[in-house]
Amino acid sequence: MISVKQALSIIEKFKYSIGTEYIAPNKALGRIVSENVLSKTDNPPFNMSAMDGYAVCNKPFNRVYKVVGEIFAGRSMSRKKILKNEAVRVYTGSKLPQGATTVIIQEKTKVLDNNFILYTNNCLKIGQYVRKKGLDFKKNKTIIKKGKILSARDLALLISANCKKIKVFKKPKISILSTGDELIFSEKVKKDSNIFASSLYMLESLIQLSFSECNYKTIVKDDKNKIKKELSKATKSDIIITTGGVSVGKKDLIRSSLIELGYKEKFWKITMRPGKPLLFGILKSKPVFSLPGNPVSTYVCFFIFIFPFLIRVLKLKNNYYKKIAKLTNNIKFISKRESYLRGFFCKKNNENFVKCLSNQDSSLLNMLATSNCLIKIPGKKKYSKNMFVEIILFPPLF
Amino acid sequence: MISVKQALSIIEKFKYSIGTEYIAPNKALGRIVSENVLSKTDNPPFNMSAMDGYAVCNKPFNRVYKVVGEIFAGRSMSRKKILKNEAVRVYTGSKLPQGATTVIIQEKTKVLDNNFILYTNNCLKIGQYVRKKGLDFKKNKTIIKKGKILSARDLALLISANCKKIKVFKKPKISILSTGDELIFSEKVKKDSNIFASSLYMLESLIQLSFSECNYKTIVKDDKNKIKKELSKATKSDIIITTGGVSVGKKDLIRSSLIELGYKEKFWKITMRPGKPLLFGILKSKPVFSLPGNPVSTYVCFFIFIFPFLIRVLKLKNNYYKKIAKLTNNIKFISKRESYLRGFFCKKNNENFVKCLSNQDSSLLNMLATSNCLIKIPGKKKYSKNMFVEIILFPPLF
Repeated sequence: MISVKQALSIIEKFKYSIGTEYIAPNKALGRIVSENVLSKTDNPPFNMSAMDGYAVCNKPFNRVYKVVGEIFAGRSMSRKKILKNEAVRVYTGSKLPQGATTVIIQEKTKVLDNNFILYTNNCLKIGQYVRKKGLDFKKNKTIIKKGKILSARDLALLISANCKKIKVFKKPKISILSTGDELIFSEKVKKDSNIFASSLYMLESLIQLSFSECNYKTIVKDDKNKIKKELSKATKSDIIITTGGVSVGKKDLIRSSLIELGYKEKFWKITMRPGKPLLFGILKSKPVFSLPGNPVSTYVCFFIFIFPFLIRVLKLKNNYYKKIAKLTNNIKFISKRESYLRGFFCKKNNENFVKCLSNQDSSLLNMLATSNCLIKIPGKKKYSKNMFVEIILFPPLF
Repeated sequence: MISVKQALSIIEKFKYSIGTEYIAPNKALGRIVSENVLSKTDNPPFNMSAMDGYAVCNKPFNRVYKVVGEIFAGRSMSRKKILKNEAVRVYTGSKLPQGATTVIIQEKTKVLDNNFILYTNNCLKIGQYVRKKGLDFKKNKTIIKKGKILSARDLALLISANCKKIKVFKKPKISILSTGDELIFSEKVKKDSNIFASSLYMLESLIQLSFSECNYKTIVKDDKNKIKKELSKATKSDIIITTGGVSVGKKDLIRSSLIELGYKEKFWKITMRPGKPLLFGILKSKPVFSLPGNPVSTYVCFFIFIFPFLIRVLKLKNNYYKKIAKLTNNIKFISKRESYLRGFFCKKNNENFVKCLSNQDSSLLNMLATSNCLIKIPGKKKYSKNMFVEIILFPPLF
């Protein structure tokens, strides 16, 4: 048995990369950029009017201009150039003609006869109401940095920069195998001794929330041949997660199946509660995480070990939300192992508080769903009300 | 022209509901529950062993038991009942036979000859290592409350409670019409005077992040017949969003098109920067939000007006992330209108700071992508370094 810290360090030492792919920016929400993205164009691509008005040259200063044309946004004018005393009617987004250096807004003009306008102000600055070519960003400059998780705003930026394809990290593809004779799929009709494989769906969602995808999920009976067959199949994925059958009972066949398939064990069993039988190893160069079968243990092991692993594979910063909080109740629960208890965090008057939920049995989904954090308790220590503890908040939708 | 506050109040007074639907829990990540969900079963569904060991009756206290059978998780035994001096081999998750009141863990036993075991401890409590029927939750009790946004943990809870369908709010279906002769779709090859309709994709993502879906998006030329046709078509959605063409220029045809279609105007133009030409009204009983065409204005108007509207329609709490922060620079920018400036928020030594980004032109996507909050500045007031301002942080991926 090794400690949680040792286990995390072994996982961290395992070097693994998933590779990159090119995708269109409009499909890239929430994806992680794997290299700096350069703009393919200036934005605006030309000097552009920022208002409705008239494009003119600011020098020499005139009061009266002859309107020689009109340019709508998205259009050009047949005459490419204007002279010093000429003006062109423009609108927000219109391309300025050659020779125009500034824009007079329509509110400051009076329309005269014969296509003449009068400017009613006393000065005319160069570049006024003009969005200069490249004001937003310039061609071949970095607009998005490597490692950024793309937001809705980023997509707009990439599209306006004419980036047709961007390089992002592939989503790690994960197979989930839930083992147990008692397990059934959620849509099935339940017989008395059956248990729904709730962890299967929970893990699928957690994977999705961890910038990854579950490309295969199944339930496997407690039968070594079946388990071995499914494990072999799962090596087509980037990562394998199993639940259940990893302890020391008669029906705990995961480890022996992996050994028979020639996997390389990195560790088995940790001094943690819940999560003691956790196993980590490599099967045909693919990492295998075998989690205990109780849904709370499954959840805690995913959150503490697999989530940071995925974050690291995707070269993100570990954005675990760790805090120190004051206990609002005594913790009756003492274990020799480092414990991760379900807690409820809240903030009052800028101070962090956490309540340790009443029942910490690792089968209790109701308690897990009610909680919003884990309380990390070192082994053997007793904690009582008003003491400070380390907590880890769950990310949104986790 | 009305104030931002008045505009928000008019939108808030408009009563609108989208309805509900039934979906399977495994498809329900991030969906909003519209009525309390009751459990369809007890969990555990029966008294269950919490460990590998032997199920026995705790009274009278015996030291030696005869092992009369074995029950694996998910299985039953042909003999339904055990006698006082009998034991049944059980595993984590095994259903206890009738007559068994407690579990002896295997570590505390010695296997004797002829299927007898010796218990090596001195006391035997009722319910020890037993997960009692209904310990997690009881049948017909509320397990998820109305209004909850379903997490991965909630899905596991719902599945284990045998809930096949749950009632959730429908996702509001939204049509987006981007108007402008200069606009082209992101995959198109760009000619000199074209502009990519970046707002279209940005809005699509923002809608998706707001518990809603974009069921139709298109670009419309500045042509009143085409605009009217697309607006009519869009009334099949629950909500209509348009961008561009809503100001007072020659090509600003949105408002006149809506008027000709007989829409009911709620407001047009607000004392806000960016976002002045914002329009809100009702077309064939469907709310229409017409946003200005500059992408930053589009973004700010969505975030300040449409996002809270969707949140309210879905009966969620407005989880805007408002804070007070200290300015790290002077704001040169002064307007008569209430301004929402792009800022960059950070925390140092538990204090909130915000930097007002240098260029606040509403066409600048790079500045928008770099920012992480809006700074709300009342009209006409000058703000300088070290003054406190109200900021609104962007939600994740917004």
